[in-house]
This record gives sequence, C-alpha cells and structure tokens, in this order.
Amino acid sequence: MDDRALLNIIRPVCGRETCSDDCAILPLSCGTLVTSTDMLHERSDFPQGMTDWQIGWMSVAVTISDIAAMGAQPIQILLAIGLNTEERLSGIVSGAQACCRKYGATYAGGDLDAHTELTLVSTGIGIITDGTPVRRIGAHVGDCICVTGTLGRAILGLSGDKRYWKDLCEPQPRVHEGIAVRTAGGTAMMDISDGLAISLYDIASESGVGMEISSIRIPLPLDAEREKALEAALFGGGDFELLFFIPENATSTLSIPFSIIGKVTEGSNITMDGEMLQKRGYLHHW
Amino acid sequence: MDDRALLNIIRPVCGRETCSDDCAILPLSCGTLVTSTDMLHERSDFPQGMTDWQIGWMSVAVTISDIAAMGAQPIQILLAIGLNTEERLSGIVSGAQACCRKYGATYAGGDLDAHTELTLVSTGIGIITDGTPVRRIGAHVGDCICVTGTLGRAILGLSGDKRYWKDLCEPQPRVHEGIAVRTAGGTAMMDISDGLAISLYDIASESGVGMEISSIRIPLPLDAEREKALEAALFGGGDFELLFFIPENATSTLSIPFSIIGKVTEGSNITMDGEMLQKRGYLHHW
Repeated sequence: MDDRALLNIIRPVCGRETCSDDCAILPLSCGTLVTSTDMLHERSDFPQGMTDWQIGWMSVAVTISDIAAMGAQPIQILLAIGLNTEERLSGIVSGAQACCRKYGATYAGGDLDAHTELTLVSTGIGIITDGTPVRRIGAHVGDCICVTGTLGRAILGLSGDKRYWKDLCEPQPRVHEGIAVRTAGGTAMMDISDGLAISLYDIASESGVGMEISSIRIPLPLDAEREKALEAALFGGGDFELLFFIPENATSTLSIPFSIIGKVTEGSNITMDGEMLQKRGYLHHW
Repeated sequence: MDDRALLNIIRPVCGRETCSDDCAILPLSCGTLVTSTDMLHERSDFPQGMTDWQIGWMSVAVTISDIAAMGAQPIQILLAIGLNTEERLSGIVSGAQACCRKYGATYAGGDLDAHTELTLVSTGIGIITDGTPVRRIGAHVGDCICVTGTLGRAILGLSGDKRYWKDLCEPQPRVHEGIAVRTAGGTAMMDISDGLAISLYDIASESGVGMEISSIRIPLPLDAEREKALEAALFGGGDFELLFFIPENATSTLSIPFSIIGKVTEGSNITMDGEMLQKRGYLHHW
C-alpha cells in the first residue's frame, strides 16, 4: 500500500477537506493561515552525500514549498529533530535557519529527541491577508496547465550528474511565484515534489477534470539528455517547482517566468502527445 | 548529554527567546498564536501495553498541554505519522481526533510516512485574543507557587499500579485551567510533564528567582503510598498538570481547583522543607 492509498483510508476519519491540499487551512479574522507538516528520514529521504546543513535546509524547504503551493507567505517554521548523534545538531539547525531566512519565515525552535535514525519533522505556518488559498480543487476546463522553472534536475542529480547535485540537495521553493499565481487568478496549484505526472493526476482527481499536455513544452535542462530528463521530470520527483492552472486570459498578468505545458479538458483522461500518461511517481510504500 | 544541555548549544543559534517556553509565540494583528511541536517514539515514549488509540491521544495531548501552559486555546493540530505497519493508522488517528475534539482543536491531517519504529510528531497552534501568553520568565519574589490536580499518578501507573494506568496513557491537558490562570494574572507557567522538580528549576532559571516549597502541600493521590507518590511527583514525569506562579492577592480570583505548594524567594536556591531540592527529572539522553 502506498501513501496515497493510506490517505484514502483516513479521509473518512479526517474529512475530505482536511486531506486534499499541500496545507491545511485555518481562517482567522486577520487573514487565512495555511499549515503543513513533513516528516523526513535519513535513509528514505536524504541522498547519501548530503551535508547536515543541506539536510536542515531541505527539511525546511519541503514545508515552505507546501506553503508556496497555496499562494501564501511562510511566517514561522518549527523543527522536531530526532537526532542519532549530537554532533549533527548545529549543522542541521544552521541549514534550517538559512532556509527560513531566505524565504522570510521565523525559525522558532521545536523539539529535540534521540533516535536511532535521523528523523526531521518540519511544520510551517503561512499567511494570506489579501485573498484565499489556491487549492487542488478549482481547475476548470480550458485553463492553461503551467509549471515554474525547469523540471527533472533533482533526479538527474540523484542519478550521478554532478551539475544537478545542488538542485537535489538545496531545493528553492517558489514562494514569490506562488503568491504571484494566486494574485493573478490561479485556479489550482500544488508543488511537483512527487513528480509531474502524479501531480497532474492529483489535481485532475480533486478538480474533476481531464488534461492534455505536450511533452515538447515541458521545460527541461537544456544541457541534459532529453529522454532521461523527461522521464525524471514526469515520474521522478524532488523538483520543488509549482504546477498551476490559470485561465488563458489571466496569463498575461503573471509577472513570473513560467511554461504552459497543456490545457484542462473535459472527462478524466490525462494524455501526453495524445496518449494516456502513466500514473506513477514518488510514493512511500509499506 | 541530555536535551536541556543540547538546548543550551542551539540557544545562541535560535536566540534565547525562541527556546525558553513550552511554545513559540507568533503575534498577529487579530491575536497572539502559540505553537508547539513534540516528537514521540514508540520505544522511549509509549509504555508497553498502550493501545493505538491511546498512542494517538497522548501524541496530541502532549502538544495541547504545551499550549495550555501558555494560557492559550488550542485551535489546530497537525500530526506527522511514521508508521511501522498500516494496520495501526486508524486507531492512532481516532485517538488523536478524540483528544482534539475534547479540547476544541481541529485535527487537520498532517503527513504519513513509513518508518521502522513508530514515530509521531504532533504540532499545535493555540490562540489568545484577550491578552498575552504566560511564559516561564515572569515569576516574582513573593508569588505563590501552585499546581493543578494531583501529582505522581503517571509514574505510579507506569510502575504497575493499575489504578493509575489510565492517568499515564490518557493524560488530560489543563486547557481550561491554563486560561483561568492567565486571566487571573498568573506570572509564569509550564506543564510538569518532565516532573515537578526539574520544572521548578526551569522556571527559577528563566525568571531569575529562588523557591521554597513544602512537601506536605504537594497534592498526591490519597490512596497511594506517600513516599513513593512523592518521589514520582517530584522526579518522575508524565503528569500533565500545570505549575504556575501568581501573586498572593490574585489567588482569590482563580476559579479552578489548585494547590499552593510554596513561595518564590530571592536568590537562586530551590529548597523543599528547608533542604536543597535535587535537580533531576525526565530527560532524553544521548
């Protein structure tokens, strides 16, 4: 069973609304908070060779990316650290702090614990004071399907291409871009940290739509082998770019670089170059 | 090295303000948020014999207790679950939800992950809209030293006394009491989940004061062996009662049951019945 299947088990318990976005939503009188928590383990989540500083950075970046995917500004990060050896603490905390600082969030401490395998859980709070979060539900037939950045770099780095090692280990969440998409009228959004294909399926399922994309329009690193990069982008993961949906007439107001890779369609099929797109990506398995 | 010593290592990195209370403090224009995260592992934190429901309950209760200790109302809980086997999920989530419901917080999902040892990290948000949080700094010379409830029950349960097993496994955080202490003018507060003695030392250190308490005034279960119960209360842990400090003339406005166990003094000594109180309690060791 994978984590998306498990989510289906607890949806009836939590309520569908609770389990369907990158963040939970908490409306307050002075704005809307979005909150997210992410658990990372050394063996399954941190590639060998990462420094402690990068481990701290990445732990925070994954959570900030979830906040960015709602179109919110991150304001506070808490980090629970299950530490296998105390020497690692200051490196991890420095990396976590650097990531918070870069994206305008306060690093507010957390919890310390001893554990046989290094385990990090970051929890973040973001805020929107001038609108409402962009969710996974909301994509409409006719909307443009768009992504930020170039995709596939993280998996290329993981598979040994040193040029992309830093992309893998120090992901740069798209906070500014997420806010720009929200204010321009984006209808749905998520990050593609589990891969582009599975993310398209997630949005399609939440929004009740189909999609068609064109492989030639997917932005890939120019200097990488095209086939390999495309496979990494579609089915890999680790890229903390945003996948977002926006009416065509709103794209001109978007003041960030982005690529249109396809269109939202009726029905529920997801096709690439006219053929069904495989539904696979990064999943935790039990 | 224990977790309080490790905290001293990261204080210079995080800033003292960040690491000195049960919760971090996040001021917004519509109120003050308090946030807390707690990591629990099966082997070190959950006594053998606890049900999955109780494990879910306790994971949330520890965080709600931290929020209560700031005098805040819990509003949202996120739970990151590192699961060793999928069968346990629904029991854990049900227990977590029950605890949220009892204390008025929304259970807002979280993260799911596979892990060899069951690991739970709960993160909570509380809010205060009519005042400011009660911190560990703030106890003044002359203040009464007070506790809620009866102490020592958790450790008595852990050491085999079946009458207290439920007290150990289903702690009842003192949310109502924490808010009452704050509105009555409490000057400092924390929960005593690591034991009464170490908690007195924590507040004394933050507030720069000494303390004298009287063993006869410590509320213990009436039907337990007194010596054993006193040892459990002072140096054990697992009791999610509140230790709070309040000027004597404010005690009459407190509309909750509580016990005055001593007075804040000048200097930095902490004495019980005129003798130095040992500084020990529950600590994670590396």
